This record gives sequence, structure tokens and C-alpha cells, in this order.
Amino acid sequence: MTTVLLRLTLLCGCVVGLAGAAAAQTGAEVARAYREAHAPAIVRDYAEMLAYPNRARDLDDVTRAAAYIRNKLRDAGVDTRLLTLDGVPPLVFGELRVPGAQRTLGLYAHYDGQPVDPSNWTHPPFEPTLYTSAMDSGGRPRGLPADTEGVDPEWRVYARSAGDDKAPIQALLSVIHAFRDGEVTPTSNLIFFFDGQEEAGSPRLGDYMELVRERVEGVDVWLFCDGPAHQSGRPLLALGARGSMGMEVTVYGATRNLHSGHYGNWAPDTGMILARLLSSMKDETGRVSIDGWYDTAEPLSEEADAALRAMPDWDSQLKQELGLARTEGEPQTLPERLMVPALNVRGMTSGNTGPLARNIIPNTAVAALGIRLVQGNDPAHLRRLVVAHIERQGFHVVADDPDLDARLRHPLIAKVTGGGGSVAARTSISDPFVMQVIAAATDAADRAFVEGALVISPGLGGTLPIALFTDVWQKPALVVPIANHDNNQHAPDENLRLANLWYGIDLFAEILTMP
Amino acid sequence: MTTVLLRLTLLCGCVVGLAGAAAAQTGAEVARAYREAHAPAIVRDYAEMLAYPNRARDLDDVTRAAAYIRNKLRDAGVDTRLLTLDGVPPLVFGELRVPGAQRTLGLYAHYDGQPVDPSNWTHPPFEPTLYTSAMDSGGRPRGLPADTEGVDPEWRVYARSAGDDKAPIQALLSVIHAFRDGEVTPTSNLIFFFDGQEEAGSPRLGDYMELVRERVEGVDVWLFCDGPAHQSGRPLLALGARGSMGMEVTVYGATRNLHSGHYGNWAPDTGMILARLLSSMKDETGRVSIDGWYDTAEPLSEEADAALRAMPDWDSQLKQELGLARTEGEPQTLPERLMVPALNVRGMTSGNTGPLARNIIPNTAVAALGIRLVQGNDPAHLRRLVVAHIERQGFHVVADDPDLDARLRHPLIAKVTGGGGSVAARTSISDPFVMQVIAAATDAADRAFVEGALVISPGLGGTLPIALFTDVWQKPALVVPIANHDNNQHAPDENLRLANLWYGIDLFAEILTMP
Repeated sequence: MTTVLLRLTLLCGCVVGLAGAAAAQTGAEVARAYREAHAPAIVRDYAEMLAYPNRARDLDDVTRAAAYIRNKLRDAGVDTRLLTLDGVPPLVFGELRVPGAQRTLGLYAHYDGQPVDPSNWTHPPFEPTLYTSAMDSGGRPRGLPADTEGVDPEWRVYARSAGDDKAPIQALLSVIHAFRDGEVTPTSNLIFFFDGQEEAGSPRLGDYMELVRERVEGVDVWLFCDGPAHQSGRPLLALGARGSMGMEVTVYGATRNLHSGHYGNWAPDTGMILARLLSSMKDETGRVSIDGWYDTAEPLSEEADAALRAMPDWDSQLKQELGLARTEGEPQTLPERLMVPALNVRGMTSGNTGPLARNIIPNTAVAALGIRLVQGNDPAHLRRLVVAHIERQGFHVVADDPDLDARLRHPLIAKVTGGGGSVAARTSISDPFVMQVIAAATDAADRAFVEGALVISPGLGGTLPIALFTDVWQKPALVVPIANHDNNQHAPDENLRLANLWYGIDLFAEILTMP
Repeated sequence: MTTVLLRLTLLCGCVVGLAGAAAAQTGAEVARAYREAHAPAIVRDYAEMLAYPNRARDLDDVTRAAAYIRNKLRDAGVDTRLLTLDGVPPLVFGELRVPGAQRTLGLYAHYDGQPVDPSNWTHPPFEPTLYTSAMDSGGRPRGLPADTEGVDPEWRVYARSAGDDKAPIQALLSVIHAFRDGEVTPTSNLIFFFDGQEEAGSPRLGDYMELVRERVEGVDVWLFCDGPAHQSGRPLLALGARGSMGMEVTVYGATRNLHSGHYGNWAPDTGMILARLLSSMKDETGRVSIDGWYDTAEPLSEEADAALRAMPDWDSQLKQELGLARTEGEPQTLPERLMVPALNVRGMTSGNTGPLARNIIPNTAVAALGIRLVQGNDPAHLRRLVVAHIERQGFHVVADDPDLDARLRHPLIAKVTGGGGSVAARTSISDPFVMQVIAAATDAADRAFVEGALVISPGLGGTLPIALFTDVWQKPALVVPIANHDNNQHAPDENLRLANLWYGIDLFAEILTMP
């Protein structure tokens, strides 16, 4: 530890003299001291931010959430404004120019959240609730801490977006405040770019970038502050991410729900029709049976393949934790499976189950498909493959609910909607700016965990709008996640473990003061 | 028409002298005149009855609905009481003894309703709303009629249980009132038996029958006043009904929902697992692939087979109406398909679809199965066949959610619940009491429609607790439905066409005064 500190102090351009302090402190030390002194206030501030509803489709809500964050950033001394485009959430843009800085960092995060079905949450998703540890490990709810209380890093705050993706915003705010208080100057110019439409696929992010073209062009490396840490609990840095596409398939029976007694055995059984269609798409080993599904996936580069092989094999522990006797695609490991395009059923609806189940034959059955793309995959192409497959199963494919005439002409009809998606992206590990960030993240991980803790992945399984930065604007981009891997991202009871917020503060302090 | 009237007048033991009336009127004529004079009040009364929530599991609600109907029956001069058993809805029991009557009719109906998911209804299910015709044929909502208004028989009243099964209760009440006003005496003793748990499978009906054993033993023939008319719009009489059984199958993935990016391609895809299991249960022609599924179904008797062949073939019209290019089991017709045990998916749930769909891999997928039994099928036996089939697909079958240990030992786990069901029943067409009811129903149908309108079916596709009456108590039992076939029974926007209520009044007036 001493060695690391020494090395940092020697290398770091950010060594500052603190008025009245006996020894010079690194930026990371300043941030850590600030965090330790202000932990209860940081937790309360974070809870306040999480209380702002942030579904991308609720424009009023999401705009209020954006204004709140803009004000917080401005209070921290960042030159801030809301970029706006008609009908979509604003983008929180911020800029901190550092006289003499030779590098500009772009800091991407998103303040919008996934849709919520409050009936499945233990607490309302926008009433942040602190727990003494994870709910499913016997954690108990407790009030927000007063200034005089100690804060346990194992505490978790439960709320939508606690893990995905307001945590890095809070961590960055805390670091900026710590630096102001401690008179630390970052070593790079900073561009803050907080997206309000990530969970909706960031369809207008490119337009927002055009609005501040000269700023975007000046960025040397983008940091995507999003996603969870490695499942082992070790910190993670990723050189890319998969793309994502959602599709929805609806199959049709009669024009109305029918009584299962009076029509059962005669009326088309929509659930069975959908089941047959879905099961034609993927075999028992997890291999997608859609013609051409794997054809456009590019092979990994040598350096990406090397990074992949260096990753820890955590499958056994993960299977134990998640209660899985078998995984899809065994014996391939999770990191290997994330390098391949995925097709999943993310939702399925027909009639009702449980106490609301009724004796009907539902007139529709619906499946929501979740597709993840790897480098080389084009969303429109994969969509065409899915549609062609459905047609080969004998379905007449339509874009809208069929009218009576179409129903009478086609025994099998499938409505296919959705499909606008994002491509995958990868950044080269040998880019000099990338190497600087990796060095800083390595230091932060060494300090917060143990030497060599940082896991470097060739690509996240999740999706970020990285390709816009790497392919369109030709900038290197890295993913630096901080959330705990079991944060229930996108699911009910989403949460953040405070230790992960603390690590985020360490990480950004290190990166913002890297040589 | 004259011939029919003449025949009725000559045959009917119920001819009465009306004080001050010039000519003798039959009971049916008295009831029809009453209905024509009081149509607006009957509609308003019916709306009042429908406003009582009646889900069998909401004991307070359903008890209030029962008390309301008991009071209405008492007001009509029927000796009435609520039979009660702990923890289940009461049974409305009524008795009308007719001095000198040589026959006792049992009148079964049920006042409870299927569960409702109000979000799918156009109007709240317990706020009855009158429409000028069917909603989907351009009907428009209108207020309840004042006494001075004409009532169009094409009007429909929308509410839960409008078709299933409060309509016969209203029709019987109107007939009893008409007979009191017109001094008509029924030709049979009457036992009213209004069940409050039919939609929950009437598990305690046998116990209720024991509570009034001497009354039940005295019944000569039971009428099951439930179900819809024939799809052609013609009135229907059925000599039995299929049995019913609900089962639910849950398959498991990880112990929690997982992010479809970070785990997609590796975590078990619960929707696909369920889809494969379901599609193994039934082939594309509608044939159930579960071993032994058809083995215990008894062949039709000669008389039942003859009745089946005499039924109108309405498939083409029905397919046109329901927008179906193909039906399950083609070229077999609907009446034929109802003589065979059915397996349907009545509901399917996993994650969400539509705007609430999230990028997760749901940790469970659930299918609700609806099973219909024919004569010879035993619910417990069919349940065993389903479970054995699921096991043959490689699943470890459990009754409760698996613990971590079980999950780690079995790659595929299916929880199977439900299965308590009812058997099918059939009554012989040659029983003398049955023949009397058929003659009366034939007359009513001839009068309300055209000569020969009545359709006689060997068995309803739907389910009624008939076997208790036919098999346990050894009484003949007939089904006399009155609701329109498109009443959306068990589904949102359930409704009753007033012409069908009018037919119910005609029918019961005829049966209650049959020779």
C-alpha cells in the first residue's frame, strides 16, 4: 500500500498543497477523506436524487430529474446547461475547463431509468429506502443516516436507477465537491454528458452531440460510467459493449377471448401457437436456430481474445449464487457467451395466470424478445432474419393488428413490432488515452481492493450507445462501471451497495487526476 | 303460431281464469304480457342485481350478493333462506310448494362470477352499462330505461355475470312475479338452488346438498340454468357438460431476474423453457401429445351420437364471425370437438410485454392450463398424465417453489399446482321427466323463434357441477342456457342481450307450467 501511495504521489500531476495540512495529499486521498467526513450527507443527497422519477417516456418527470441534476452540477462549480430537443428528454451537459490541461475527458452517464411495475417492488421505486444489507440476505430497512452516525459500506439503497445509472453521477458530484473543498485541480478538461434516453435506446443522442459539436470533437477519450462490477465483486473496466434490440411478436386466435369450455379444442390455442413459434427459435443447448443468426458476428481481435482469456472464470460461484444447475451454452463460460449475439424471451403475456386466471382461450399471445448484438451485427439485418424465420414457420407477418379479412385469409398471423436497435462497439486497448485510463483505474482498484483487482473485459454484455462515439465520432471509449453486480438492474428492487459508491468516488478521483 | 297456441292451451294444466279477463291465458302468455308491460323495470332490476360484486373468493362481497338475491326471491313469495358453511359463499335456497303437484323441479343457477381484471374492461365490471347493441357492432351506451320508454330487445347490458349466470335468476324472478300478478300456479313444486361457488368449482356443493337432503331427494329433474345459447342464435338444451380442471406450471431460471445484456445467452431463458415444454404437449393439428390423453374418454352412446349428428353445422358462420381461417382439429366440427378432452393454455406470464417490457431474463415463466374432461375422464388421472409428461421432458416436478439446494441439483424444475377438478356428466334423453322438459323447451323455442328452433346437444363444452346430481344423487339433469353465445362469458365486457332475457322468461314460464 505504501508503495502504491508513493508511486501515485510521484507520478501524479495533481499533488496539491493544502492550507494548514502537514503533508501533500493526492486527489484520491482528498476525495477519500472528503467521503469519510461526509458519508451521511452523501447518502442523503443520493436518496434525494433517486426520488426523482425518471422514466424516459414520462417527459415531465424526466425533465424535472434533469433540471435537478443540472442544478447539482452547477452548485459544484461546473459550467452546466440542459441541451433540449423537441419531445425527448433533455441532455445534461457540463464543462469544466482546466487551464493548461492537455487532455479532455468525456464523462457519459445516464439519468433516465427502466420502466417500473410498482406492484413487484417491495417499496415504491421512487421512494429510496436504505437497508442494512441486501434484502435477500436478511437486510432490514433503516432511516437515512444523520451526520453524527457511522455509515456501513454494506448498506444498500433501494430505488429505481440506484445501480443504473445515477450512482456514477453521485460519485462524480462528490469528487468535484471534494476537489473544490480540498483545492484539487483535475488534470484534464472535463465534459459531462448525462443522457436522458439511454433506456429508450438513446435515439437522439447523435443529434445532441451535434448541438455541441466543437466540444465533442475536443474529447480525447470517453468514459462510459454505467453498468455493474464483475460478479466476483472485483472492479471492472470494459473495452466495449453489446448492442441491443427489442422486438415484440403477437399471435392471434379468434377476434375475442373465448370460453375455454365452449370452444376449447376447436378455437386456436394462442399460447400453444406462440410456444411452438418460440421453441422453433432456439434449441435446448441455447443455440439460436434462426438461419444466419451467427453469420455476421466478427471474430475477436487477438488483443480482445487475450483480455477474454485473462478474465476470471467465475461461473461456478455465479451458478451457486443464482441457483443454477445448468447454464445456456455450457461448457462455454459467461464471458465467452457475451461475445455471441443473444436472443431471449424478456416477457410473455397471454390471458392471466394465478388468481386472475380465467377459463378462456386468450385471443392473443405476446412475446417480447430481447436481442443483444456483437461487433459485426446490424440490427436491421438481424430483424430481417427473425421475420424470415417467423414466415418460414408458416406465419403471415404484419405490422399492425390484422383486420377480419386478413384473419380469414391466413391461418397463422404474427404481428412483429420493434427492432430499432443499437450496434455493438469495441475500443482498442493500445490507444494511448485508453492506456492512461486503464492505469488510473488499476491504481484505484489496487487501493480499494487488492493489487491486481481490476478485471478487464473485451466487452460488456449490456448495451451502451458507445458506437456513436467510437464509430461515428472516431473516439476511443471505455466502460467504467461501479454498481454492485447484484444491483437488480432493470428489475424490481434495484439497489446500490454503498461500498460501490465509495469505489466510484475513488475511481473518478484517480481518473480525474491521472498524469 | 295459432296451432301452437291451441295445442298449448289444450295440453296445459296451467290454464287459469283471470278475473275480469275475457279469455283464458296460458302461463307463458301471462309471463309474456307481464314482461311486455314491465320491461323497463325488469332491466333496471337486473342492473341492480349486477351491481353486486360476486367473486367467489371475496367472501363479504359474495355474501352481500347472496343476501340481495335471497331478499328478491322472498319478495316474490318464495320460501327462502341462505344455507351457510364456514368460509365459503352461502347457497341461496328457495322452495315453492304447489298443492297437488306431482313433480318437483330443481332449478340450479349460480350467482358468483369469474375473477375480473378491471383494466381490461370498457366500463367497471360492477357498474352495469346499457348499450344500444353489442359494443363491437357499433352499440352506444345509454341510460337505463324509464317506465315510459320502449325497450329494444337488441340492447345489451354489460357487467360481470350479465351472461354467466345472473340472467336465469332474473328470468325466474320475473316469471314468479308474473305468475303472482296473473294468479298462475306452477304445475311442479320448485326448489331454487343458487350456487355461490360455481366459478371456483363448487367444491362444497355436495355438503350444501346434504344440508337439505330431504329436499334434494324429492327433486325429479334438475334444470341447470347456465351457459350460452347455440352460436346460431337458436336456443339450446344440453344433456350434459364437460368437466373442468385448472393446472398451473411454473418453470425456473436464476433465483432473481437477470439483466438480459449481462447474462443473455448464459442464464436459462425461462420463456423458451416454458415454450418448449408447452409445445411438447400438443401438436399443430390440435392433438394433445400427452401419453394416454384420449384413452379413458368413453365413446358416445347411440342416442348421444344421434343428437350430435342432428345438431346444425355452424362452423363456417362461426369462423367468419370470429375471424378464423382454421380451427383446431379440422375437419372435425365444434360439436364433435366438444366430445373430446381438451387441453388449452388459458394464461401465460413471464416478465412483461408492451411498454412495461424490460431488458431482463425473467426468473420464472408461468402457464395456466385449462383442461376439459369428457365422460370417462378422471381429473386425478389426467393430472397424473400431465405430470408424467412434464417429467418425461426432463423436469424435476415440485409442488412448491424450489429452494437453492433443489435448484442446484436439477437443471429443469417445474412447479405444478392445481388439478382439483370436476368430471363430465350426461343424462339420458329417454328419461320421462327429461322428455317433459324437452317438450316444454321445444314449445318455448317454437314460440319465441321458429318451429324446430331448439338445438339439442349431447353435452355442453362448458362445465357445470352436474355430476354431483346425476352420479351422486342419481337424478336426471338438463342444461337450459339462455345467454347469447357472444356474451363474453369469463372475459372482459361480459354482456347479455335483452332478447335472451326475454327468451329466458318465455322458457321458464313454459317449463314451470308444463303438463
